[in-house]
Amino acid sequence: MTNAATLQSFIGGRWHGKEAATPLYSALNNSVIYHTHAEQIDFTEAVQYGRKTGIPALMKLDFQQRAACLKALALYLMERKEELYKISHLTGATRPDSWVDVEGGIGTLFAYAGMGSRELPSSNVLHEGPAMALGKRGGFAGTHILVPRGGIAVHINAFNFPIWGLLEKFAPSFLAAMPCIGKPATATSYLTEALIRMVNDSGLLPPGALQLVIGGTGDLLDRLQGPDVVTFTGSADTAAKLRANRNLIANSIPFTAEADSLNCAILAPDVTPDDPEFDLFVKEVAREMTGKAGQKCTAIRRIIVPAAQADAVAERLRERLSKVTVGDPSVEGVRMGALASKDQQRDVAAQVERLSAGNELLFGARDGFKPVGEGVEQGAFFAPTLLLCRNAMENDAVHDVEAFGPVSTMMTYADIDEALALAARGKGSLVSTLVTKDPRTAAYAVPVAAASHGRVLVLEREASVDSTGHGSPLPQLKHGGPGRAGGGEELGGIRAVRHFLQRAAVQGSPTMLSAITGEYVRGGAVRESEVHPFRKHFEDLVVGDSLLTHRRTVSEADIVNFGGVSGDYFYMHFDEIAAKDTQFGKRIAHGYFVLSAAAGLFVSPAPGPVLANYGLDNLRFITPVAIGDTIRARLTCKRKVDRNRKDDKGVGQGVVAWDVQVTNQNDELVASYDILTLVSKHN
Amino acid sequence: MTNAATLQSFIGGRWHGKEAATPLYSALNNSVIYHTHAEQIDFTEAVQYGRKTGIPALMKLDFQQRAACLKALALYLMERKEELYKISHLTGATRPDSWVDVEGGIGTLFAYAGMGSRELPSSNVLHEGPAMALGKRGGFAGTHILVPRGGIAVHINAFNFPIWGLLEKFAPSFLAAMPCIGKPATATSYLTEALIRMVNDSGLLPPGALQLVIGGTGDLLDRLQGPDVVTFTGSADTAAKLRANRNLIANSIPFTAEADSLNCAILAPDVTPDDPEFDLFVKEVAREMTGKAGQKCTAIRRIIVPAAQADAVAERLRERLSKVTVGDPSVEGVRMGALASKDQQRDVAAQVERLSAGNELLFGARDGFKPVGEGVEQGAFFAPTLLLCRNAMENDAVHDVEAFGPVSTMMTYADIDEALALAARGKGSLVSTLVTKDPRTAAYAVPVAAASHGRVLVLEREASVDSTGHGSPLPQLKHGGPGRAGGGEELGGIRAVRHFLQRAAVQGSPTMLSAITGEYVRGGAVRESEVHPFRKHFEDLVVGDSLLTHRRTVSEADIVNFGGVSGDYFYMHFDEIAAKDTQFGKRIAHGYFVLSAAAGLFVSPAPGPVLANYGLDNLRFITPVAIGDTIRARLTCKRKVDRNRKDDKGVGQGVVAWDVQVTNQNDELVASYDILTLVSKHN
Repeated sequence: MTNAATLQSFIGGRWHGKEAATPLYSALNNSVIYHTHAEQIDFTEAVQYGRKTGIPALMKLDFQQRAACLKALALYLMERKEELYKISHLTGATRPDSWVDVEGGIGTLFAYAGMGSRELPSSNVLHEGPAMALGKRGGFAGTHILVPRGGIAVHINAFNFPIWGLLEKFAPSFLAAMPCIGKPATATSYLTEALIRMVNDSGLLPPGALQLVIGGTGDLLDRLQGPDVVTFTGSADTAAKLRANRNLIANSIPFTAEADSLNCAILAPDVTPDDPEFDLFVKEVAREMTGKAGQKCTAIRRIIVPAAQADAVAERLRERLSKVTVGDPSVEGVRMGALASKDQQRDVAAQVERLSAGNELLFGARDGFKPVGEGVEQGAFFAPTLLLCRNAMENDAVHDVEAFGPVSTMMTYADIDEALALAARGKGSLVSTLVTKDPRTAAYAVPVAAASHGRVLVLEREASVDSTGHGSPLPQLKHGGPGRAGGGEELGGIRAVRHFLQRAAVQGSPTMLSAITGEYVRGGAVRESEVHPFRKHFEDLVVGDSLLTHRRTVSEADIVNFGGVSGDYFYMHFDEIAAKDTQFGKRIAHGYFVLSAAAGLFVSPAPGPVLANYGLDNLRFITPVAIGDTIRARLTCKRKVDRNRKDDKGVGQGVVAWDVQVTNQNDELVASYDILTLVSKHN
Repeated sequence: MTNAATLQSFIGGRWHGKEAATPLYSALNNSVIYHTHAEQIDFTEAVQYGRKTGIPALMKLDFQQRAACLKALALYLMERKEELYKISHLTGATRPDSWVDVEGGIGTLFAYAGMGSRELPSSNVLHEGPAMALGKRGGFAGTHILVPRGGIAVHINAFNFPIWGLLEKFAPSFLAAMPCIGKPATATSYLTEALIRMVNDSGLLPPGALQLVIGGTGDLLDRLQGPDVVTFTGSADTAAKLRANRNLIANSIPFTAEADSLNCAILAPDVTPDDPEFDLFVKEVAREMTGKAGQKCTAIRRIIVPAAQADAVAERLRERLSKVTVGDPSVEGVRMGALASKDQQRDVAAQVERLSAGNELLFGARDGFKPVGEGVEQGAFFAPTLLLCRNAMENDAVHDVEAFGPVSTMMTYADIDEALALAARGKGSLVSTLVTKDPRTAAYAVPVAAASHGRVLVLEREASVDSTGHGSPLPQLKHGGPGRAGGGEELGGIRAVRHFLQRAAVQGSPTMLSAITGEYVRGGAVRESEVHPFRKHFEDLVVGDSLLTHRRTVSEADIVNFGGVSGDYFYMHFDEIAAKDTQFGKRIAHGYFVLSAAAGLFVSPAPGPVLANYGLDNLRFITPVAIGDTIRARLTCKRKVDRNRKDDKGVGQGVVAWDVQVTNQNDELVASYDILTLVSKHN
């Protein structure tokens, strides 16, 4: 296959590279399938294109619009996923392995589109409130905002997930208005290139939003500036080298790493071979050892079991592993594919050597191992390999050597504290699994494990039904561990978007803070609306539009009637004798009466643009309302979010939050809360 | 003064050092006032003591108890503050300068004691919820927890704030259960030593919680491990050197820096010399130039004004600066003291040389400048110095050279975009001030400035009454800027505590997540309580204690009565014609009726341990309740926080949050919320 295609970089809005350079090989048979390109990339152009074209294009959109972009892109890619599966096969992946990469990656776009739409504003200022009064006279307050950094994101990725690896970083950084330069590991960069061609064909992203580097990063990092960021997934050695880059250090350019990880699974002392949890443990370990041929940063490398259960676990694991057919995934019945390359095959063999010293080999046909399929003799296959270490507290290699393949070491412990000490010997890992039936064991062990693991999965029969598994990072949950694992945080819902934004404290008058944050800050100037604010359509409402209601004197009859309607006869409202002994010294009105009466004061009864009050937040009852007190409410438009949605009749609607303050005759605050409404648009 | 005292390090619970080494000088007259000690510190001992004594001692307490420790310490120190003021005088500080350091530092302890008490749990697991369902059958969920890292914190500080500088880092890291090793800058370490002696005498901190290094850090950083953290305040050069430490990089040890910063103040185009804002601007600039003799990381180094206003600003600034008497602060009328040392004096003079090239000197008697006071000829005084740069977009020095003294450069702009471009030329700063009357200018400019500034202050007449000023970091607000400023985040309320904790994602069944987080996670096992949960005292309540109420059928009469009591006659409840056109197609009950009826279902009327329902969070109306629907509520103890408080009668009480789910006859969720109560203890 001498005329294997030459991959191209996508830089400055154009595809670069014609002349073939380094050959890339099929994992299945080691034939040459692609070449990298020989032409040098002009990283000045890449960076400038990101800055001058990408940033302005992204900043023309707001958070909501970028979320919508992601959703459209995800839909586009999902329709074309089979093309990606086809190419993914060349990496040695089975269909389920590729599912994690292809649909896991596209699913992450969907997830960030959804979270962005639900949680981000329709502007480019994310208010991280609440605003706080600073001073006693109400003229000065402080709060925090998160804004786009005005820089570009360089995402350097590992070979194992050529699609998910890029998309899980691209999605949150794109939401944060950062143009991205993706740099996949060369060995499997052909799959990333196919993805970027698809993205580019879609025409759905603004220009400059996503560039691709095939080959090395050259002097790219030296060209970055303070507002830029770098993320890295790969080996701890490379992470350390990049982190020490002079330019990154001199300009405090954030560098996030996800690196080596000796993840573990712990079988708790309470689980016996008769429990379904025992099988769950064995199944999870076997799956994590063999899934993606063990080439997952999150794979289980250390199997921590009670000494008394070691033999039973070993037996059942051997049984399971012996049923795993290894070979070309296109052959029916094959459950584990190849490593990504012959280089990986050599590396893993060398690491197994190091791990084996002083330990027993429980499973693993290192000699005479034969994968199934045609022409696979030259492929990068590796036999599932299980070791047993009986003195793990004294053995460093089993906690330090990461064989990035279907390789795991079982180790034994005497009690849960020793199990946790063994887990921590990994010096920081991405994930650990604890299999236990006992909530007390979980309550004790998980916070300890959490100090050195980015994610902790607790598995028992109840969870097993829906469990997404030890090895799967989820968009909603943090991915990344401390120490050896790189100390980085990825994903974790909107946290990931925040990591790519810049936080600033903002101080000023409430009026100024309202203008800056786009959210009404209490104490700021309001616009006394001539029209009732509930009668304004979404487009016409302005943050600060306000209504001060008429008043209502609360009588004993109100309390009596409210008790009758609600059935709430709490002594504070109905028992004059007991109420005397409370801090208030007399009967007071129900808090929910105050809330209901306030609604009665500000509701506009006829049909209008306010469609529904779907919720209420941060309600605090501050001053009690006694018989004879006179209350009124101030209702102020606090926040508008345009999610660009329409109802089933095609009428547009937006989300509007209202600040409500209920006060008494002395202007004391009685109750304070936000109400959430849907408000229709003119069209 | 040859027998000046020798300072000591506090390591391993003992004071170390007898033999004098480097002399330290009075800023006022350059006499020798202290020596560092000659003995080498055994950093292995320091680190081990922190790990083996400090961590277990801190982990015996929970967040609430550590907050109480901070409060007691703050009270103790505040009573003894005058001793610290006395020593602070030797640093060249005026009383107001020392106030920032001494009372600012102690105030930060108070602030963290308060925020810790209000916002942290009475355990060592901080739940960062909400938990999320992961899967459709309800058996699997995910959430995040923050736990103590199990490491020690090394705080390396600058010479300008020997007390505040340590305490503002100590407070949040102590709350996070990290033993601290404080390393003040040597020049003013005598003041930090005095503080640590006071802290030690108080006996209020657990052993190992706070150690002190006088002199260099030696091999301290090489002895740290993954769970440890390092914070640094000082020059960008030193920050870069430390950040590149091999051990820190190899183990991903978090390193937070607060470094150089060319902060600016911008006078917006809308402000004219007749506005009070013009005076506010001049006053703020003059104060920031001369306060602490300009030795604040946050001082205004760049004064950005409209070209048309440059002369007017220069005139008023000169006028103000000429009134600042410089000298020994113990002399009546002195408004500005000395730099911290002769070294600083030489440094600042050299930087002024660099800044002056090509620029005008507007103010600053570099020759013939005479501070007032006795024996001050040898002191480290420096004249306030104001420069003018008329081509600031072409001048690098004015944006790059930080003269750490009473030195500032005025520069002119043509429009607000140029002003913002000049501000960004600082390549990342701690703080900028914008003086404007116009909220639209603030709304436009602040998000831009926020990308390169850790804090932005907007100043006008309304804010000025309570403004805490450009130069003052506040415990509630983030301190630290991107890029040149080091890229770190300090303070910012409980954010700072989170920075010192480790975040982990946790997955498992709701029952397991409830046990781990200490908060009831919906779907988890509940304990059907025989006694009504509202009749249990705080000590007896268990998270998960639950009550499923009797039922209530909602009738048209309920809607009518509720309308009458509340006054809420919204068409969805009362207008059969209009209600037909809604998404529900018929009249529905008021949401607040559902809330009130639910209370009627679960309230226990007689006096009992539940003292008050003081608030409600996260209310969402999910399924509407129609006439004829039958509702009931499940009330479950969700969270208990023991703040160790008593009411005015001496009865202890705790905070209890309850999960409420209101469902209908089809078990559909109708409304969902948390209620917040105070519950009394047995004693």
